[in-house]
Amino acid sequence: MSENLDYSDQHYFNSYDHFSIHEEMLKDSVRTISYRDAIYKNRDQFKDKVVLDVGCGSGILSMFAANAGAKHVIGVDRSNIIDMAREVVAANGLSSKITLIKGKMEEVVLPFDKVDIIVSEWMGYFLLYEAMLDTVLYARDRYLVDGGLILPDKAIMYISGIEDEEYKGQKIGFWDDVYGFDYTPFKSLALRDPLVDCVEEKSVITTKFALRTFDLYTVTKKDLSFSSDFQLLCMNTDTLHGFVVWFDIDFERVNNKVHFSTGPAAKYTHWKQTVFYTVDNHNITTGDSIQGKIDVSPNVVNPRDVDIEIDYSVQNGSRHCLKFIMA
Amino acid sequence: MSENLDYSDQHYFNSYDHFSIHEEMLKDSVRTISYRDAIYKNRDQFKDKVVLDVGCGSGILSMFAANAGAKHVIGVDRSNIIDMAREVVAANGLSSKITLIKGKMEEVVLPFDKVDIIVSEWMGYFLLYEAMLDTVLYARDRYLVDGGLILPDKAIMYISGIEDEEYKGQKIGFWDDVYGFDYTPFKSLALRDPLVDCVEEKSVITTKFALRTFDLYTVTKKDLSFSSDFQLLCMNTDTLHGFVVWFDIDFERVNNKVHFSTGPAAKYTHWKQTVFYTVDNHNITTGDSIQGKIDVSPNVVNPRDVDIEIDYSVQNGSRHCLKFIMA
Repeated sequence: MSENLDYSDQHYFNSYDHFSIHEEMLKDSVRTISYRDAIYKNRDQFKDKVVLDVGCGSGILSMFAANAGAKHVIGVDRSNIIDMAREVVAANGLSSKITLIKGKMEEVVLPFDKVDIIVSEWMGYFLLYEAMLDTVLYARDRYLVDGGLILPDKAIMYISGIEDEEYKGQKIGFWDDVYGFDYTPFKSLALRDPLVDCVEEKSVITTKFALRTFDLYTVTKKDLSFSSDFQLLCMNTDTLHGFVVWFDIDFERVNNKVHFSTGPAAKYTHWKQTVFYTVDNHNITTGDSIQGKIDVSPNVVNPRDVDIEIDYSVQNGSRHCLKFIMA
Repeated sequence: MSENLDYSDQHYFNSYDHFSIHEEMLKDSVRTISYRDAIYKNRDQFKDKVVLDVGCGSGILSMFAANAGAKHVIGVDRSNIIDMAREVVAANGLSSKITLIKGKMEEVVLPFDKVDIIVSEWMGYFLLYEAMLDTVLYARDRYLVDGGLILPDKAIMYISGIEDEEYKGQKIGFWDDVYGFDYTPFKSLALRDPLVDCVEEKSVITTKFALRTFDLYTVTKKDLSFSSDFQLLCMNTDTLHGFVVWFDIDFERVNNKVHFSTGPAAKYTHWKQTVFYTVDNHNITTGDSIQGKIDVSPNVVNPRDVDIEIDYSVQNGSRHCLKFIMA
């Protein structure tokens, strides 16, 4: 009996606490190395500072900050994963530098009244899905000293048009004939369901348009509902099957800036991209313009979900209105 | 405004009800075509019969049964997906043949006191994880006529030993050094977490052993906790990194029998296989024997989870005890 384990750790295996989510995030090297670079390459700005890690998860950002010379790091997370983070921090001899607190950011009591720096990896799919940006904003308004730093400090959401015949056939057309049966009621659901998946760069057939910039120093909770007009220019003569949305992240107010993208032209991240299929396909010609408007707001029933409407027309043709729920 | 959708279908998007689970199951052609064959190739046994579909999901098996000539089909499911199934059944003109009832099998009132045939796709990962076999057994004992049919009627669980150095390194060894930090507390969790993934046939380095046969006509709820000894013979000189468990399914008490496997040598299914990594790796030689015992039982705290213990020794060497939670 070389290993005598018991089942007391069961709670780590339950739903949101399952460690595989954290494994996926840690293994997302674009994400993790961007944060590491933003911290390690700006040691002069971390030296002797009090740092708050909002939603610290397995503790990786807290340990980066401690290693970069922070005076003290406070990690807050409401998930049971923080008990694991505590073990990891201890295993790395950082327990005296890092205080981990389990609870909601809005309810916990921190050992410092103010912090110099907030670090947080708060981004969800489509940037805002199940995201905890509002928690970061609470922490900023309550705890950040005047002139304090937020890492990252900018998120920009982009949209492009895509050609995606093959995959749209698998996800939408599939329901027309399922082993001989008409499953079109599911087709209606599928057309309302944004698809988180990897879009190849070659599928992008229009210019990109920056829908929205979130400046972490100034954004407020009400900005999480927004409406943006967009214009796209077709770069190919092809068929438009839908739109793809992604985001870029910047660490700008540090001496050595860091940037990463989750777009189709960038290296894989666990956020992939978010695809919104159109009901109709559209033949488009190089130079055609697409005019559109996107409306984004937290779902009224379940605020972690996101309602998304995309209105668009191709070359001033008829107006199409698509409604999605990201749930 | 060619499409005017609203958000009233929100509940289909929530957790278990999300239709993508049903999409994955329908697209598992090994699964779905096996059921279709077992029903369509035995039309004589379905003709004019009353059929109960336990956990009918999107209604595909109910429609197969109706098309095969059943007098009436009753589909029962507690998930909201049954509202979608109702729309699909209507779209296919089968509403008068198929009655769909939302609720727990143990609580609903059926329009027939007895049924001639039970069909059910109840199998979960590792056969038993989140499975609803006990629900099928309730339906059998309460509703099936003497001499009635159950499809499928047999499930066999198998085990083999595997060489899996590369992937074990990614899943277990990864935690030794995560961006320079010691994450070994997570390694302990990972070693208790059965991994649902595809094992290549060439990774199997021992014989297979049938751990348990579930005869759907005779199995009882208490049989879902079981203990089985096993013996494996090494077919290569290689390294043992863990065990793989899978199941085969049979439709035997029909005139035209159907069989499918979810093993490493078979075509992909959405059940994949379940891998149990050993703590230690073992050098093995062709002809070596592995003696073992597996204990499987529903978790006491959460009965949908499964506790699994594997005790084994290689060539009568020291005994190793592994404990897993499938959660």
